[in-house]
Amino acid sequence: MIYTDEFFMKEALKQARKAESIGEVPIGAVIVKDNKIIARAYNKREKIQSADAHAEMLAIRKACRSVGNWRLSGCTLYVTLEPCPMCAGAMINARIDRIVYGAPNPQSGACGTRLHLPEMNLLNHTPEICGGILQQDCAKLMNDFFKAVRKKKQKQ
Amino acid sequence: MIYTDEFFMKEALKQARKAESIGEVPIGAVIVKDNKIIARAYNKREKIQSADAHAEMLAIRKACRSVGNWRLSGCTLYVTLEPCPMCAGAMINARIDRIVYGAPNPQSGACGTRLHLPEMNLLNHTPEICGGILQQDCAKLMNDFFKAVRKKKQKQ
Repeated sequence: MIYTDEFFMKEALKQARKAESIGEVPIGAVIVKDNKIIARAYNKREKIQSADAHAEMLAIRKACRSVGNWRLSGCTLYVTLEPCPMCAGAMINARIDRIVYGAPNPQSGACGTRLHLPEMNLLNHTPEICGGILQQDCAKLMNDFFKAVRKKKQKQ
Repeated sequence: MIYTDEFFMKEALKQARKAESIGEVPIGAVIVKDNKIIARAYNKREKIQSADAHAEMLAIRKACRSVGNWRLSGCTLYVTLEPCPMCAGAMINARIDRIVYGAPNPQSGACGTRLHLPEMNLLNHTPEICGGILQQDCAKLMNDFFKAVRKKKQKQ
C-alpha cells in the first residue's frame, strides 16, 4: 500500500459524506500517525448543537484520547476544507506537524486564505501546510450541499 | 446586586483558582446571559490530556448545552487571560456578543496582542472586546504559578 496525501484525503472525504448524509455541512477529517489513522471525525455542529463540533476539533479530541497526550507531535491532520481559526488554532495548540486540506475556505480559512495562523509561529510551533489535495472533489461536495440547501429554501 | 464586569471576572478568577489547585495553568472562564452565569469552567489540559481543554472551550461547550443551541448570541464570555486563536475563533463561531478578559497574553493572545481575530469580521460577526478587567489579580495568579513551576524545576 502506498500512503499518499490523496489516500488519506479520500478517507477524510468518506467522513465528509457521513456528515452530508445527516444534513450537516459536509466536512470530514482524519489524523494520521506513522501511516496509521488514529482518529476520524465529521462535522456534527447541528446534531450536537455545539459551536466547537467541527470535524477537526472532534478528530483532535479523539486523537488525544488515542495517544493519551494533548501533544500530537508526529501527526498529520487531513481535512476536506481549509480550517477556520478555531480549528487551525487547536492544531497549533496540539503541536500537529502537518495540516493537509482539500478546498480553500474563502469565508474563514485560517491557513492562507483569510489569514495564515500557522506561519505566525505562535507557541514556537509552525505546522507545515499543504492545500489543494483532491480540491475538486472536496469543493464539489460543499457546492452540491449548498446548492441543495438553496433549492430547498426556494421551494419553501 | 449590581452586575459589573468586575463582578463576573471575580467568578472567572474563582474558576482559575480551581485550575491552580489541581496543578493546571490557572485560567478560568464564565459565560453570562441576561446577567446569569450559564457556564463556568477552568483549564483542564493536563488532567484530560486534550489540546482543546482550555477554560473557554469547556465553558462554550457547557453554555451550548445549557441553551440547546450552538449560537450563543446575547452572551458575554469572561476569561482571566486573553484568549488564544482557538478560543477566540470558537467565540466567533458561537456568535458570542462580548469577550471580556483580564490579563493580556503575550505568547498567543488573539484579541489584540499577537493578532486581533474579532476585528477581522470573520463570518460577518465582530464581538466587542474589553481587556484589562481585574488585570493585576489575573496576571498575579499566572505569574505566581509559573514562578512556583520554575522553583520546583530548579530543585529537581
